[in-house]
Amino acid sequence: MLITTLIFLFALTIIYNTAPDPLSVSIGFSIIGGLITWKLVSELGESFINVNLKGRDLAKVNEPTIPESMGVVCATVYLMCMFFFIPFPFMEWFTGKGIISRSEEFHAPTFPHHKLGEFLSAMLSLQSMTFLGFADDIFDIRWRHKLFLPAIASIPILMVYYVNFGITHIVIPIPLRFMFGRIIDLGFLYYIYMAMMAMFCTNSINILAGINGVEIGQSLVIACSIAINDFLFLNDADPAVEAHLFSLYFILPFIGVSIGLIIHNWYPSSVFVGDTYCYFAGMTFAVVGILSHFSKTVLLFFIPQIFNFIYSCPQLFRLIDCPRHRLPRFNPSTNKLEYSKVKVQKPLKKPALYVIRIFEILGLVKTKDENNSIEVNNFTLMNLLLLKFGPLHERKLAILVIIVQILASCLSFIIRYRLVHFFYEI
Amino acid sequence: MLITTLIFLFALTIIYNTAPDPLSVSIGFSIIGGLITWKLVSELGESFINVNLKGRDLAKVNEPTIPESMGVVCATVYLMCMFFFIPFPFMEWFTGKGIISRSEEFHAPTFPHHKLGEFLSAMLSLQSMTFLGFADDIFDIRWRHKLFLPAIASIPILMVYYVNFGITHIVIPIPLRFMFGRIIDLGFLYYIYMAMMAMFCTNSINILAGINGVEIGQSLVIACSIAINDFLFLNDADPAVEAHLFSLYFILPFIGVSIGLIIHNWYPSSVFVGDTYCYFAGMTFAVVGILSHFSKTVLLFFIPQIFNFIYSCPQLFRLIDCPRHRLPRFNPSTNKLEYSKVKVQKPLKKPALYVIRIFEILGLVKTKDENNSIEVNNFTLMNLLLLKFGPLHERKLAILVIIVQILASCLSFIIRYRLVHFFYEI
Repeated sequence: MLITTLIFLFALTIIYNTAPDPLSVSIGFSIIGGLITWKLVSELGESFINVNLKGRDLAKVNEPTIPESMGVVCATVYLMCMFFFIPFPFMEWFTGKGIISRSEEFHAPTFPHHKLGEFLSAMLSLQSMTFLGFADDIFDIRWRHKLFLPAIASIPILMVYYVNFGITHIVIPIPLRFMFGRIIDLGFLYYIYMAMMAMFCTNSINILAGINGVEIGQSLVIACSIAINDFLFLNDADPAVEAHLFSLYFILPFIGVSIGLIIHNWYPSSVFVGDTYCYFAGMTFAVVGILSHFSKTVLLFFIPQIFNFIYSCPQLFRLIDCPRHRLPRFNPSTNKLEYSKVKVQKPLKKPALYVIRIFEILGLVKTKDENNSIEVNNFTLMNLLLLKFGPLHERKLAILVIIVQILASCLSFIIRYRLVHFFYEI
Repeated sequence: MLITTLIFLFALTIIYNTAPDPLSVSIGFSIIGGLITWKLVSELGESFINVNLKGRDLAKVNEPTIPESMGVVCATVYLMCMFFFIPFPFMEWFTGKGIISRSEEFHAPTFPHHKLGEFLSAMLSLQSMTFLGFADDIFDIRWRHKLFLPAIASIPILMVYYVNFGITHIVIPIPLRFMFGRIIDLGFLYYIYMAMMAMFCTNSINILAGINGVEIGQSLVIACSIAINDFLFLNDADPAVEAHLFSLYFILPFIGVSIGLIIHNWYPSSVFVGDTYCYFAGMTFAVVGILSHFSKTVLLFFIPQIFNFIYSCPQLFRLIDCPRHRLPRFNPSTNKLEYSKVKVQKPLKKPALYVIRIFEILGLVKTKDENNSIEVNNFTLMNLLLLKFGPLHERKLAILVIIVQILASCLSFIIRYRLVHFFYEI
């Protein structure tokens, strides 16, 4: 801890004196943040267990008790790194190259307060979500409450979006223009859409979770996809270059601290990441999507989560019984995970029956008819993968989910950069 | 909870439609925030005890176990109120009266991004401090670490201070001008001063704490003093009116939620407020002092805390033995608090002896010579009050501390508005 802090301070001094380009500084902070996370998580495990932030890993033979909510360490390191980083993109104003006019009315080009506002509001939203996630880990907040917390946490970025961009119209895809015209102004609805995006990003990672390494694994793939997409824009003399730099400043340290944490969370885990990590990760994606104005591209990278959510809906909305935990079942004799099942009492209601029939035709469920009930697998992506590939070792299932996520990202890039021509004239 | 939320939403709708002046809205939010805090604290007590956030009240005969860290509820309600409040001071820009220019270069008067930056950075610092305070309550962070946390949490406001004001010179008081001249530019040191002010405000409330109602009591007196001082400036056609409005927007809801909490924390307490509240309160004062640029006036209101800190120094810096707890001792037979004592082994070191002698001359300590040791009262304001006034009931001691705080505030106003002429030409 001390050594890494010293390295950190040392790097800081050097960096402050030479004032290099912010992107290199961001990469430096990402590496330092990753190292500090890696070190701190292993040091703080005991304190977390002492204060009852712990859980049993049920997918192991001896069911060890390990620290829970370690995402809060990762998120705190991230926020601290960002606190120290924020001055760098504005360094020219601090070194005297840019002249700050502090008068009330702006008649000369002056300090880009609106840019600083973006950073501050993004930090505020991220910190709110981390705080709420941690509170959730401690108090186990009710579902219907925690669903809306991200919407509240996104107020600062929505407000800054309003004053900095205020764009609320969307360009309609070509095939639909005969109905809606070329451009439609959603007005206030666009803000509802962005708040819902924050709700979706945070909660969807939280429901594709529960086995070692899968929360961070999927988040890392999404984060890397966003970073790659950002780098594509940096090569052009693109007007969006500043927005994508902003995105990189937030995504790169996220990748750093996530790698620092996954070292401890990969199979066999020595720590759990908790809801805190899922919320923190989801909010990071929502923030860069909204403030860098490519929310649709971010949502493309969420294809597996969107699928998992839609697939889960019949259970989430209680059309079909939803047990408290829908995680794959651990079989100690084979040391593998099998898909978990739920028994639905007969007679089934009409809509439930239709859903099961449709999912059966699509090959998404496996049913077993019994006397008084129908047994069916739980509707989650992980159970579906186990249904298709047979029982798998926990590590292999995590890798499989990550591969699915990578394939989805490839598909997203194809949609974004090739198929887009069928929908928009670019 | 539901009812208050409904009232809250209802009020919000009405307010949004009519767009009245932000100060009335702020007062409205303060009342609503206070009500929600009052309601939530009583509802959430059980959940706090369930997750082990609890403590025994040692100054009662039966030593009841009550919820700890309830300051986090109060601070969260405050932050939520502020989230909803922030748009109001900028309402003219949202209703179309002001024209937002979103182009990169500012040639026309446009949205006051720098003002919004002040709000966002203040929120960020407050939220950081709340988060760190809560983490401290849970993990019991080491003294030498937590001393510096407020300095990190103040980075956002210091940065915004730099770009919005950048004033780092101080006017030297008349009696000292023969040495330093009229004005001295502290430069970078001024930022160190502000960070240290944040450290002082947060930690000094935390060391004048420990009996029912005293943390909130003193904070309320300070907050009201700041509010009164702000209102004095509103009556003038003062150039500082905007700064003092900013201060009011942050102080009024603070007063609201603090009243909501003190109802439960007043003798006999049903909840403890925790380090979270002390940090949150201290940071609120530091934030308004720094961003509204009257940090010296805020420090004047901290006279009892400054006295308590200086008085405590010999123990804090281990010149004289410092037991883990220096709280007044509860005497169950009289149901009163008595000053607590510490035994210092003979022979005493020279500096310790000098300190005790000087304090004795000043009437600040009472010693009792024993064979191998000297018994002396612990060096805190509360013990001193008990030394002077004799054993007191817990409620009376809390009232006494609050009276001292009020008298100090009166003195501060006299210094600020009468004696100031001896030091500055105003």
